[in-house]
Amino acid sequence: MDSYLNKLRVEIEEHLGSIDLPSDPANLYEPIEYMLSLGGKRIRPILTLIGCELFGKPYSNAMDQALAVEIFHNFTLVHDDIMDSAEVRRNLPTVHKKWDVNIALLSGDGMIVIAYQHLFKAQNDKLKKLADVFSKTALEVCEGQQYDMDYASYETVSLPNYLEMIRLKTAVLLGGAMQLGAIVADASEKQLEQVQHFAESMGLAFQIKDDYLDSFGDQDSFGKEIGGDIREGKRTWLTLKAFELLGDDNQRLLDAYSITDISKRVDAVMAIYNELDVKGCAEKEIAKYSDDSLKTLANIEGEENVKSKLSALVHYLIDREN
Amino acid sequence: MDSYLNKLRVEIEEHLGSIDLPSDPANLYEPIEYMLSLGGKRIRPILTLIGCELFGKPYSNAMDQALAVEIFHNFTLVHDDIMDSAEVRRNLPTVHKKWDVNIALLSGDGMIVIAYQHLFKAQNDKLKKLADVFSKTALEVCEGQQYDMDYASYETVSLPNYLEMIRLKTAVLLGGAMQLGAIVADASEKQLEQVQHFAESMGLAFQIKDDYLDSFGDQDSFGKEIGGDIREGKRTWLTLKAFELLGDDNQRLLDAYSITDISKRVDAVMAIYNELDVKGCAEKEIAKYSDDSLKTLANIEGEENVKSKLSALVHYLIDREN
Repeated sequence: MDSYLNKLRVEIEEHLGSIDLPSDPANLYEPIEYMLSLGGKRIRPILTLIGCELFGKPYSNAMDQALAVEIFHNFTLVHDDIMDSAEVRRNLPTVHKKWDVNIALLSGDGMIVIAYQHLFKAQNDKLKKLADVFSKTALEVCEGQQYDMDYASYETVSLPNYLEMIRLKTAVLLGGAMQLGAIVADASEKQLEQVQHFAESMGLAFQIKDDYLDSFGDQDSFGKEIGGDIREGKRTWLTLKAFELLGDDNQRLLDAYSITDISKRVDAVMAIYNELDVKGCAEKEIAKYSDDSLKTLANIEGEENVKSKLSALVHYLIDREN
Repeated sequence: MDSYLNKLRVEIEEHLGSIDLPSDPANLYEPIEYMLSLGGKRIRPILTLIGCELFGKPYSNAMDQALAVEIFHNFTLVHDDIMDSAEVRRNLPTVHKKWDVNIALLSGDGMIVIAYQHLFKAQNDKLKKLADVFSKTALEVCEGQQYDMDYASYETVSLPNYLEMIRLKTAVLLGGAMQLGAIVADASEKQLEQVQHFAESMGLAFQIKDDYLDSFGDQDSFGKEIGGDIREGKRTWLTLKAFELLGDDNQRLLDAYSITDISKRVDAVMAIYNELDVKGCAEKEIAKYSDDSLKTLANIEGEENVKSKLSALVHYLIDREN
């Protein structure tokens, strides 16, 4: 991450750390503090700050809305971890493991409310717009999570349905985050639509890149073992593309997935990916969304120096090796 | 419930029934519709409507805020039912029984967002105040629920702590509900404080009456079997008053609670209640809070005919036999 993005991240970190929560009941507020202190790229609140700067206002004007987005995002992580029975997040125990499920459930609820409290630290004439964008986005994130859970029991899902699911589950929040900053900076309706489009396309490129790296990443740069998604039997963009290309012949891929010897399963699925050039298809798809994102950005009437930073961000997210 | 209150309830029911939710994903939105269709006294949204009328505006002006309160309340029921592993609500399966825990968790999350969406269907200059009251109240409800869960593992709790817990868990929302209506009707800060005070005291009287009826109600009017709380070993205002009165001698009550034969347990606890006149103490406490509530009401500068209706409501809630 370049020094500019890192500066924003550090400021967000400082503000998150100085949020003043009551001390009691400890089982409600300590998990919230814990969760907010776990760190991360803070990409969503960074987008809120940049969304403000893009339209000529100091990014600090949108700090409260940036915090709202990050607190909301962390609420979704706490509840998703319950739903997925995940035990570890950022190398530390998840809230429901460190405390218990009921405490995680309730402190997640509290975080939504605290997110709204930060959102509304703004001028009266901006509240309606901020609320509309935030609530619409929040509900879409819930929809995405529900589709994700629904699809977990399906043998396969069409690519358009998969893309719509990841759009709702992750990309819309990037767009919503950026819109909140833009609203603080009095952006026009057209500009709001453009930043949403820009960030959603970037988000889709980012997610497909995630799937891509898991199978085609460089072992040394990637950090984790290659093929984790195949090991877990997870349906990713790559799997669903392969299903689509195989058409009536898709039993071959189901058979490969049903091999119980894990390393043989990885080899069999990878062989099908290679045969169908799923790697090339994924690269094209990532390029399609990142190009769309950069083209949308180029058309936005905003601060040119901020636009170059956003363009660098897209390249950073797409060219990454882990 | 008298015909005026019933008229408001019917209107709220109609509006709840016509909330336009998306049809997909069905596992997100169907549980929400189900929950909102289960009925109930709708006492909280009624208070929102009356809170508006009390200050001279038509109650329909506050319908969206009334819906926000009821949707929020139903979210708390969905999540509380998960936390309590409750299987039945209003004689029907709870959401996590009818669907599953993950679906209940997520649709509860969605309900908070939908509640905020309704809250903000108001004029710009009222949004900040509405948001402040709503979020403060929502967080206090979470605090009350956390204290309730914390106290479940305690042998006993002091009466002040118990009262603070039920104030947070239930009474503040009655006050918050009423304040939202009052804000829509441009009530002053002083009037907002007064309605909060009025409704919280009424709420405390209501909750202690709940505990009272469970042990001292008339079997025929009460509907449920008398002594249910004692059977379940639940700590209520009555138990905690008895602990307080027994002082160093409180092992006697713990012994009574530890009797495994359920009907003997009920007899033993009731014998201690009778010996200490816990019934009389509870009646005094209920009267204390309802008097406080009525005194506060009398001092509010508001529509006199609405004040009489609120006074009738207090009497209805306190004199009820079930």
